[in-house]
Amino acid sequence: MRPYDIIDKKKNGFANTKEEIEFMINGYLNEEVPDYQVAAWLMAIYFKHMNEEESYNLTEIMLKSGDNIDLSKINGKKIDKHSTGGVGDKTTIAIAPMVATLGVKVAKLSGRSLGHTGGTIDKLEAIPGFKTNLNVDDFYKIANKVGLVIAGQTANIAPADKKLYSLRDATATVDELSLIASSIMSKKLAVLSDGIVLDIKVGSGAFMKDLEEARNLAKIMMSIAKKHNRKAVSVLTNMDQPLGETVGNSLEVLEAINTVKGKGPDDFSEICIEIAAYMAELSDIISYNKAKEKLLFNIEKGIVADKMKEWIKAQGGDENVVDFPEEILNISSKTLDFKATKSGYISKIDTEKVGLASMSLGAGRKTKEDSIDLSVGIKILKKLGDKVEKGDAIAKLYISDKSDVDKTFSLLSSAYSIHPEISDKLNKKIIYDVIF
Amino acid sequence: MRPYDIIDKKKNGFANTKEEIEFMINGYLNEEVPDYQVAAWLMAIYFKHMNEEESYNLTEIMLKSGDNIDLSKINGKKIDKHSTGGVGDKTTIAIAPMVATLGVKVAKLSGRSLGHTGGTIDKLEAIPGFKTNLNVDDFYKIANKVGLVIAGQTANIAPADKKLYSLRDATATVDELSLIASSIMSKKLAVLSDGIVLDIKVGSGAFMKDLEEARNLAKIMMSIAKKHNRKAVSVLTNMDQPLGETVGNSLEVLEAINTVKGKGPDDFSEICIEIAAYMAELSDIISYNKAKEKLLFNIEKGIVADKMKEWIKAQGGDENVVDFPEEILNISSKTLDFKATKSGYISKIDTEKVGLASMSLGAGRKTKEDSIDLSVGIKILKKLGDKVEKGDAIAKLYISDKSDVDKTFSLLSSAYSIHPEISDKLNKKIIYDVIF
Repeated sequence: MRPYDIIDKKKNGFANTKEEIEFMINGYLNEEVPDYQVAAWLMAIYFKHMNEEESYNLTEIMLKSGDNIDLSKINGKKIDKHSTGGVGDKTTIAIAPMVATLGVKVAKLSGRSLGHTGGTIDKLEAIPGFKTNLNVDDFYKIANKVGLVIAGQTANIAPADKKLYSLRDATATVDELSLIASSIMSKKLAVLSDGIVLDIKVGSGAFMKDLEEARNLAKIMMSIAKKHNRKAVSVLTNMDQPLGETVGNSLEVLEAINTVKGKGPDDFSEICIEIAAYMAELSDIISYNKAKEKLLFNIEKGIVADKMKEWIKAQGGDENVVDFPEEILNISSKTLDFKATKSGYISKIDTEKVGLASMSLGAGRKTKEDSIDLSVGIKILKKLGDKVEKGDAIAKLYISDKSDVDKTFSLLSSAYSIHPEISDKLNKKIIYDVIF
Repeated sequence: MRPYDIIDKKKNGFANTKEEIEFMINGYLNEEVPDYQVAAWLMAIYFKHMNEEESYNLTEIMLKSGDNIDLSKINGKKIDKHSTGGVGDKTTIAIAPMVATLGVKVAKLSGRSLGHTGGTIDKLEAIPGFKTNLNVDDFYKIANKVGLVIAGQTANIAPADKKLYSLRDATATVDELSLIASSIMSKKLAVLSDGIVLDIKVGSGAFMKDLEEARNLAKIMMSIAKKHNRKAVSVLTNMDQPLGETVGNSLEVLEAINTVKGKGPDDFSEICIEIAAYMAELSDIISYNKAKEKLLFNIEKGIVADKMKEWIKAQGGDENVVDFPEEILNISSKTLDFKATKSGYISKIDTEKVGLASMSLGAGRKTKEDSIDLSVGIKILKKLGDKVEKGDAIAKLYISDKSDVDKTFSLLSSAYSIHPEISDKLNKKIIYDVIF
């Protein structure tokens, strides 16, 4: 087998066999196939795509390049979730205690991602005392006792994906659905859960800008999950504006806490309940409809808030944060308003730019070495369709001395469009589609 | 400037600027841009192509990466030729003395290519004593005195092309017209001739299998030549069967000698006279029509044969080879016939396979390190449309002890198709088109 022939085959639009994909991926890992041949192959895949079988094979090969996370020491059904990433996406923090109140176990490993804010792990560290570097025994113990646990990921999961992703990132081959699907699924399947809810974000703040594309990505991921005998649901959700009202780390924890107490923004509350209900449905413990009903009840009665406290305490955090989040969370007291320069209706938000604005305040990291400031961020005061008068605050910035305020203002200015009349085409739908 | 953005731009179908191409090529040469990014870029170019301006810029950048060959010390008009390569292509050896009898100077640098036979330089070394490693002074002296000289290429011509070609060769990105055109032209333009005739071979024995594709390649090369203010003509020639009657090194020299004496095969003689006449036309010394007339006269009167002798002698070779080629050239005395297994008409020749058959006899090299056997090769006895009876010899193999005869027979068997009736669609046209 020669890398040349494998590249040439893909270039000419033919499918690569499992053996060929294995030869490329394992050869790349072992440094037997040089990166330039893998790079050419990736670009050929970008243009000619991989079919479902190829994506499945690629996933399995990358999955097998690393370790699995065994959850069998946790009793009951363990349901995982994954989000393709958006702006203001703090869903895991609110969903995990919700789902746990239904008797479904959530035992998640999360990373410190690069992006507009930190990852879930960074956000959770905004809670004083909260420990995310748990040892394996504590991880299982907390999951069994509390019903949920979220820890930093240290295992050697899908190293082939890690290496391939770096190459894709350098060669402009990230945006190919079959490669995205295989990358996500190789990591999600490594955690031996009983099911996965895939939250696929679509819109100006997401990687997928287009609903059809997102639907295709969902289909590929579902096909991989099915071939792997893993239960999965894909939920396509709107990311044409920031999710909820906050972008930042402490700010997002505050919003997640408010939401588990029933005081969260409508859009964020809805998405949390929907995804939690699908997680419950996947567990077979309770149906989607019953789960929704029970979740609303558990939120209202403070059962979710109590579960959140129990969880935070179990991971060493100050559980009083649930009752007094604004007092306990470190949110910058230095604020600035971003104001409307004309009157009208918010007609469009380039959400990606809102994310970059949050990053320029210091809330996110560009490289692994960057430190992030948990106290800074953006509170979104006006969303799509909202009426504003010239001079009204559209967003409140929580800043630090290191924030690049000029850049933030400039990004927000170009992110928000204000139109004299309200558009009748405004899309405020929260869930676009659910694919089983 | 970032390689990522340059790749992404091309991937999305946009043209790269001169600065961007320069950044990639010079960066690659200086090892500032890694090969994997160049490889991804090349594959994106394969799918999205380069427009004429990009090809021109790429050519100029690769050309400038190396030295020029100054021909100004040679009096008169110097016309170069280039062939894209075929099976049995010994045109340079016959053409050079033809053109020289018209007063047009031919001062060529040739390589030892990989392929079915050696390059022109290898073939010339079949003539006892013939020296191809000339020093610069001798090169100019012979050109001025005799009117023609052919030497091995040692200068540092277009090193960027050399490096890029190796990468293309490893990443299945050789077969992109804009890259082929830039590669050829960067090397041809480095030799400061007054004009170039490009012999573009088309058919089953050529890189270009399709006339339209060849026409497009010609157009790109002509556009590069024009932008560079270099006179050029492209001649599209038939390579659906081996050119002339021989494939091999000594065998091809024999055929070239026969041809300058007016005793060559019709197709090969025609192609030589046509290309020689276009070279003459480019020189402005004599028109195409007058040149053809004069060439026929010079061949008949032995003037071309005399010029060939003068040339061979000037380069240290035994000029008696022109009068007694079969006696002087080392052609293997061990022969085998490849015979027809049924009666009918030769309806198709997969010429590439005839070339590979020659290689398996030992006439060509696969890698730079391989040695070649000048004495072996194939004499083609039957060509397209010829009638054969079962048992008739189709080709005569000149073999050595090292020849892989089984492989040769098997390649020839699959190369030749015999049909019971003669096809009326047989294409025996020699010159398809000429593009100025």
